[in-house]
Parts: sequence; C-alpha cells; structure tokens
Amino acid sequence: MSASPPYPLAVSLGDPAGIGPEVIAKCWDNRSQFGLPSFVAVGDGHSIAAVWDGPIEVVDDPRQADAAFDHALPLIQIPAAGTDVPGHPSLAGAHCSLDALELAVGLARSGAASAVVTGPIAKEQLYAIGFQHPGQTEFVAERCGVSPGNVAMMLAGPTLRTVPVTTHLPLAEVARALSSALIESRGRAALRGLQRNFGIAEPRLAVTGLNPHAGEGGQLGREEIEIIGPAIAALAAEGWRVIGPLPADTMFHDRARANYDAALCMYHDQALIPIKALHFEEAVNLTLGLPIVRTAPDHGTAFDIAGQDRADPRPMAAALRMAAQSAVLRAEAA
Amino acid sequence: MSASPPYPLAVSLGDPAGIGPEVIAKCWDNRSQFGLPSFVAVGDGHSIAAVWDGPIEVVDDPRQADAAFDHALPLIQIPAAGTDVPGHPSLAGAHCSLDALELAVGLARSGAASAVVTGPIAKEQLYAIGFQHPGQTEFVAERCGVSPGNVAMMLAGPTLRTVPVTTHLPLAEVARALSSALIESRGRAALRGLQRNFGIAEPRLAVTGLNPHAGEGGQLGREEIEIIGPAIAALAAEGWRVIGPLPADTMFHDRARANYDAALCMYHDQALIPIKALHFEEAVNLTLGLPIVRTAPDHGTAFDIAGQDRADPRPMAAALRMAAQSAVLRAEAA
Repeated sequence: MSASPPYPLAVSLGDPAGIGPEVIAKCWDNRSQFGLPSFVAVGDGHSIAAVWDGPIEVVDDPRQADAAFDHALPLIQIPAAGTDVPGHPSLAGAHCSLDALELAVGLARSGAASAVVTGPIAKEQLYAIGFQHPGQTEFVAERCGVSPGNVAMMLAGPTLRTVPVTTHLPLAEVARALSSALIESRGRAALRGLQRNFGIAEPRLAVTGLNPHAGEGGQLGREEIEIIGPAIAALAAEGWRVIGPLPADTMFHDRARANYDAALCMYHDQALIPIKALHFEEAVNLTLGLPIVRTAPDHGTAFDIAGQDRADPRPMAAALRMAAQSAVLRAEAA
Repeated sequence: MSASPPYPLAVSLGDPAGIGPEVIAKCWDNRSQFGLPSFVAVGDGHSIAAVWDGPIEVVDDPRQADAAFDHALPLIQIPAAGTDVPGHPSLAGAHCSLDALELAVGLARSGAASAVVTGPIAKEQLYAIGFQHPGQTEFVAERCGVSPGNVAMMLAGPTLRTVPVTTHLPLAEVARALSSALIESRGRAALRGLQRNFGIAEPRLAVTGLNPHAGEGGQLGREEIEIIGPAIAALAAEGWRVIGPLPADTMFHDRARANYDAALCMYHDQALIPIKALHFEEAVNLTLGLPIVRTAPDHGTAFDIAGQDRADPRPMAAALRMAAQSAVLRAEAA
C-alpha cells in the first residue's frame, strides 16, 4: 500500500453459507502479506466462526475497527439463525446477506467507511425473499440514487481492464440491445471511472467491434458502421481519447493491451473471457458511476466448496486493495 | 524437433506483396534457433528477393530441397510479373498466390511433401480473379475431396487449443446457425484431429455455452439445453470424453485449461479471443479433417508493414513446427 484510505473499508460477508466469510477471514490472516488496508466485516459472526478459528472483535462502528484490526477481525454483527452451516444456503441467510449489504453500503454512503467491498450473494435465495434487482450492482446503484443505466461494471486486473456494454443477456439478443446511446453512456462511465478510480488524467479507451474482424468493412455485419462507430465519434467529439471499433480477437495480447487503459466490449463473454484468461485470481469487479467506491471479487458463492478450507482469498484481497487505492485517489481529489 | 517428417514441407508464399515471403525467408535464416524441419517455398522468388538478400536455390521437386536446405532457401519458382513491390497487391500477385497454393497442396496430396503450410493471401484480390471459396481452408478441403462441413479450423498454442463451430458470421446470426448436428460434426473433427495430429489417444473436449454463464439453467438463453447439451450427449454416447456446456468466461484460465485438450467454441471471437490473448505469437491455424496435414500462421498479409523488415516470423515458425510434428505422428501411425 502506498497510502491508506482515511477510514476502514466495509466488507459485506455475502451469503453466510458461501465462501465469503472464509475468504474475508483468510484476508485478515494474510493482511500483511496481501498488503491490505484496515477493514470491517459486516454480517453474522457465526458464519465466520463456522469456517475459521481466528479472533473476531465485534464493533459497533468502523471507527473502532482500526484499533481492533491489528489483533482481531473487526465485525459489525448482524445476527441470523442457522448461518453456521457452510454450503447450505437458507432464506435466513439471504436476509442476513441483504441486511449486511445494505448496512455496508450505508457506511460508505455516510463516509464512515472509505469504500464498500461486497462478498458473493446467492441470487436464487435473494429472489425468494423478494429482492428485485438483477444483482448487487443495481442494488448499490439504487441506494446511491444513480440510475442503473448510468453505472458500468468494470473488470480490472493488473494488465487489463474491460467494461461490458451489455451483461446478462442471451447472445441472440445482444445485437438488438446495442445502441449508440448505450455505448456512449458506458464509454463515458468507463472513461470517468479511469480518471476517478485509477487517477488516469487522460484515459484511453479501446472499443471492440461486435462481429468477427469488427465486421470487415460491413461484410460480416453492419453494427460497427451504424451503431458503434457513431458512438466512438460522439465520445471523441467530447474530447475523449477513443479508438475502434477494433477486431476483438487481436485486442488482448501483450502489445495490444499497452495501447489503451480500458476496453469497452459489446457483451459479457467478450469482456470476461480475456480478463479471466489473463487474470483469473486477480480480476476485480468495480462499479463505475457511483458516488462511492464499490468493488467485489469476481467469483460467486461456490457453495460446493464452502466450509472445506479450499477457497482462494486472492480475488477478495485484490478487491480490497483496489477499493483502498480508489478511495485514496478520491480522497486526494476531494 | 524430436523427429523429422519423411519429406520436406511445402510452404506457399501467400500474396507476394504481403509479409509471407519475408517471414518464410526469416524462418530459413533462423532455422536452427526455431528448430525447423526442411521445407521448400512455393511462389515467385522475386517477392522474396525484394525483401531479403539471402541465398535462394530454385528446385524442381521437394526431393531436391533436403540437399539445398543447409545452404539456401529451396524454392519452387512460380513466375509472375510485378511481385517485387511489397505492400502493393496486384491481380498478377493474386494469380501467383493461388497457383502457389494449388501446387503446394498438390505436393502434399501426392506425398512428395509431408505437409502444406500456407502463407497469408489477400481475399479481395483473389475474389477479383474469380476465387470462389471463403478462404484457403475451404479451397484446400475441396482439393482434398472433403466437404467443407466436415473440416474444422483449430487454433493451437502451447497451452490452449480452440475450435470454433461457426466462423465468419455476423454475431446476430450465430444462434440461428447453430445446430446439434453441426456441433457434433465439429466436435468429432476436433477429437479425431487431437488423435491424428497431436497423438492424444483419448482426447478430452470441453464445449462452451453460447450464452453468459452457459445460459444459467435456461434463464439467459436455451441453446445450451436444446442444442449444445444434446450434441454433447451424442458425442459422449459414441465413447468420446466430452464435458460442457461450460461458462466460456471461466474456461480459459491456467487451471481450467489443464482439464481438456481442446475447447469447442460456438463462434469466432469466443475461440479466438482466448487463444490470441494467451498465445498471440505462437497460435497456429490447423485444418482438421483433411487427408493431409495443413497449417498456417494465424495472421494476414499485413500489407501496411510489408517490405519494412518488421514482420515477426515466429507465427510462421510455429506453423512449420506444428506441421512437422503432425506429419511425424501421421507417418508413425500409417
């Protein structure tokens, strides 16, 4: 860490039956080796104690976390029944994960925490208790008063950052879902996010084509000419440094990646295949366009390995480090 | 090289105004360092002399190439006018590249060459002289008497091999173009290709989903359930080791790649993004399902850098090595 954020990070445990509690506890165990800032976990301590026998110190407020952090994992306790059975999600656990998310976001919104990092939740259980959002990102956006259309998901690793324009859509619907306005909006969120979260004054954005060879001059599809190209021209007219549409298959090798700070991709796998191929253990999910810093490890609850001491804490550690770095940059700019 | 193929490889120069002549000459220059087998170039020597001042020995037949290879680049000369201007493609050059391809394939078909390696051609110029095929692969298939539907393109690098089910289609048409029969056919070509070209007795094939998260149980598209799953079941019923449909974004990191010998992907970028992100300088295009061995470097004519001594010969060297290895395996199996 070159610098520490002014306040601890708030980390929601996610679903208590998933690997969230385990990876967060392991991050505290390895806090020096991983170069982690002070953080406070938010959730039910029983779900941590079920998978980890280290020291936990229950606190009421992130301000108490700094003092505790050296000798124990600071925890804001949200009690729930039956959260001590790893691998077996429950409705009580879903309620607990939602309460933890809400509280952690609130701490970041109020400024008591410098950022929020979210553990993996179980959508099926959340939907069963009435959760209405596609995922945590949209929930956080709503709690921050930002329209979901104005936030963007960035996947960030050490040598590549990608931002998908569309996310959880069937592939057959991607072409219809694209519009110049949507590409511009995501592109702006990506460019501003590079400035605010990474401190890049004049960010460079590379935009993919949708089709093989970026459409090969219209022979393999016209979206590059009719939709993507105009969006790039509009962003360039605002003074942003934007290139494309580029053939997606030749954008992600070492030399190509040196030419841009983020790649704006048209659909889920176009953005996620390269980042996970190159940076599986270090890819961080970062929400752009929010008034707060929010990151998450780019993995799910992994119920199948929960409670077996097999979960890899490195993605969570990367999410904590990136949240801290972004929070420091924002504090400096404020 | 662990072993050499019985006869030299035949290498078509591709378009004489592209980087084919340069990378082939550089391969001969670095034949020891690159570990290359004996090969004979096929095309117009003027296009080589325009970009390289090394020794060329014109031969009539690949049998003479072995003796020449130590002291000169063996060449079967196909004269053409005006092929000595790098970066400026012409119709005469297109005719020359087509004649070279035809002759090189014929040498492999007759057994005089152990394999054919094809340099990059210029489709626009070829179409202008009446070439009817989508690319060299389909031309080679026809000359070998194999239906284009029964061949498959494999991109092979040191730690990953991918085979796209569909190739040069607009993304919006991919879902409609998929069928269980096509996936089965490409899957069989991939599996047999792993046996014949790589000597893997019991190859393992991993099949991607089409949609994000492989459709998430039908919530993000039904192709996995209705089209891809049945094709996998059919291949498995024939005794092949096939897994999937798997979420494409988590298939290409180090540990995931250790679980299969090739990934069967639903479309162009799904197959080409990961292979080029990981192995840009070493990815080889290998045609499966042919009676002969055919490889190619996975790059184009690059007219913009032709004649500037900037072309990287490593992809061509990788294509030559892979052709030789496959030819040795086939000779041993014969």
